[in-house]
Amino acid sequence: MNSRERFQAACRNGKVDRPPVWLMRQAGRTLPEYRELRANHSFWDVCRTPELAAEVTMQPLRRFPIDAAIIFSDILVVPDAMGMNIEFTPAPVIDQTIETMEDVKALKRPDVEKALGYVAGALKEVRSQLGSERALIGFAGAPYTLACYMVDGMGKKGFVKTRGMMYSHPELMHALMDKVTDVLIDYLTMQVESGIDAFQVFDSWGGDLPPDQFEAFALPYVARIMERLKGKGAASIYYVNGIGNVLELASQAGSDVLGVDWRISMEDVRRRLPGRVVQGNLDPTALYGNPEDIGNRVHRILDATGGQGHILNLGHGLNPSTPIEGIDAFVRSVSTWKKSS
Amino acid sequence: MNSRERFQAACRNGKVDRPPVWLMRQAGRTLPEYRELRANHSFWDVCRTPELAAEVTMQPLRRFPIDAAIIFSDILVVPDAMGMNIEFTPAPVIDQTIETMEDVKALKRPDVEKALGYVAGALKEVRSQLGSERALIGFAGAPYTLACYMVDGMGKKGFVKTRGMMYSHPELMHALMDKVTDVLIDYLTMQVESGIDAFQVFDSWGGDLPPDQFEAFALPYVARIMERLKGKGAASIYYVNGIGNVLELASQAGSDVLGVDWRISMEDVRRRLPGRVVQGNLDPTALYGNPEDIGNRVHRILDATGGQGHILNLGHGLNPSTPIEGIDAFVRSVSTWKKSS
Repeated sequence: MNSRERFQAACRNGKVDRPPVWLMRQAGRTLPEYRELRANHSFWDVCRTPELAAEVTMQPLRRFPIDAAIIFSDILVVPDAMGMNIEFTPAPVIDQTIETMEDVKALKRPDVEKALGYVAGALKEVRSQLGSERALIGFAGAPYTLACYMVDGMGKKGFVKTRGMMYSHPELMHALMDKVTDVLIDYLTMQVESGIDAFQVFDSWGGDLPPDQFEAFALPYVARIMERLKGKGAASIYYVNGIGNVLELASQAGSDVLGVDWRISMEDVRRRLPGRVVQGNLDPTALYGNPEDIGNRVHRILDATGGQGHILNLGHGLNPSTPIEGIDAFVRSVSTWKKSS
Repeated sequence: MNSRERFQAACRNGKVDRPPVWLMRQAGRTLPEYRELRANHSFWDVCRTPELAAEVTMQPLRRFPIDAAIIFSDILVVPDAMGMNIEFTPAPVIDQTIETMEDVKALKRPDVEKALGYVAGALKEVRSQLGSERALIGFAGAPYTLACYMVDGMGKKGFVKTRGMMYSHPELMHALMDKVTDVLIDYLTMQVESGIDAFQVFDSWGGDLPPDQFEAFALPYVARIMERLKGKGAASIYYVNGIGNVLELASQAGSDVLGVDWRISMEDVRRRLPGRVVQGNLDPTALYGNPEDIGNRVHRILDATGGQGHILNLGHGLNPSTPIEGIDAFVRSVSTWKKSS
């Protein structure tokens, strides 16, 4: 069973020799070879140049025996393509946020092949370098998470404007979510046609909503994406950061796999959603511990799922200061795990 | 039944004519009279001058029919008293963070009457202005939440250094938590002796821990505080932001009241902890909605608890841009609620 077969089987709850493993934000500042490349190229340059994006995407696969590559990009390429003009300085900056229905109407529904063709180019380049034995993952931000940045701007604590807008101007929020969702469907369809095995929808802020607001504003749009992408040939992963309070609701979005953050125990996830295919969920800061401790923690998570219907991952993205030895211990511990009878 | 009797009864799951109500961060930037006073006085001046702290504490009670005052202060007064030198510029800044066992050893265990006597002075001043018919609440940060600021510094996303230290240097984290806890016990004892009816321990970041780490590092220290303050004459409230994944664990800390954030439905809280006295939990951004909508949302929360063993509150602090009408609608809706038979 090669990595790609293992990954594809796990997404569909099929039999695997061991659970597949990859890490959120595995390509990026944690790796010295990434920092070296970035010394000469801006973030946008790397994203928009298929050869550079592919190089960065491949870097972690050369170091670690991981089963899947995830394309190097950013969820903000979508608001950028809709006309919002994102700069990375180096932190991302949006110059104009959404405040009125006119602002929503002024957003473009771009031709994704034109506006985001660089992502398709990067995916095809990675596919050709990767060969057919390892899996390739594409991604996009969830509509609600993108709305947070589009309404509040970057780096805002709690996204109070966005959450407040849901109560004060629900129709405006729905109009924004609707428009973003249409673009995301086009964008992910293009990714599927570029050869990915799976795509992950990142809902980094969905878990900050009360369950009723999550159900009213976040869930229907993700469900529409999952519905429209179904049967096109790629598995789907819906990751919600802070999923604990909305676990059952998030499961209803209809993704093949549910991505789980580190704040909930995997035992609890299995108890509440028996048989659901899940991904996760080690605390990324556990990788600052010693290799033995990391191995024990990974094994406890694998014991909870029995290694079945489970893609091993962190519960959130790698932190830039993570020691390489910690990543290595994490990845290798999937192979030292023995299923208890 | 006056406000103080209502509040005291609710803390002990006693009979009330209606649930008591107050709002986290009810004194502060949301009120124009506060901003006016702050134009002439620094944050530290207000904290450290009993008359000014009392004036700011009283401001929301003149505007709204709320049942309790909460002393105007900051959780960072404790690390400051331990020698960490906090400045407000206006955001708080810590100049030196904790990195080694020597740093922990260098922290002072202050004589709280000397180092934090200004808080006792402010409490006594408020008590005298408040009279005996309304409740007075004191507070402190939870040991883990204070450790986050002491290790990571201010404004750090995710408190990665603190969480990482728990895995890489657990003995260092325990030493820090132990020392902070001793000071908190002294500090809260002084508050109780200054005439408060209840104290709230704010664990703003406890909900970011995986349940096993919460149990190992956050819970034992809060439990020690609750144990040591028991029977001294004030009720205790343990508020955990992001409590959903650790609800049952947090309940074991032994506080009289459990403070609940907005990310979990009150129906879920009641189902998981039947009969537990709780406080909360409207999304603070719901106050940007219209008064009718706010009333409906408050009534839904009250329906969930039946108004019994429940202190109505937000699920987090008031946001500075909250409309006054929203606060008013929130506070008044507790009186328009009718218990369904």
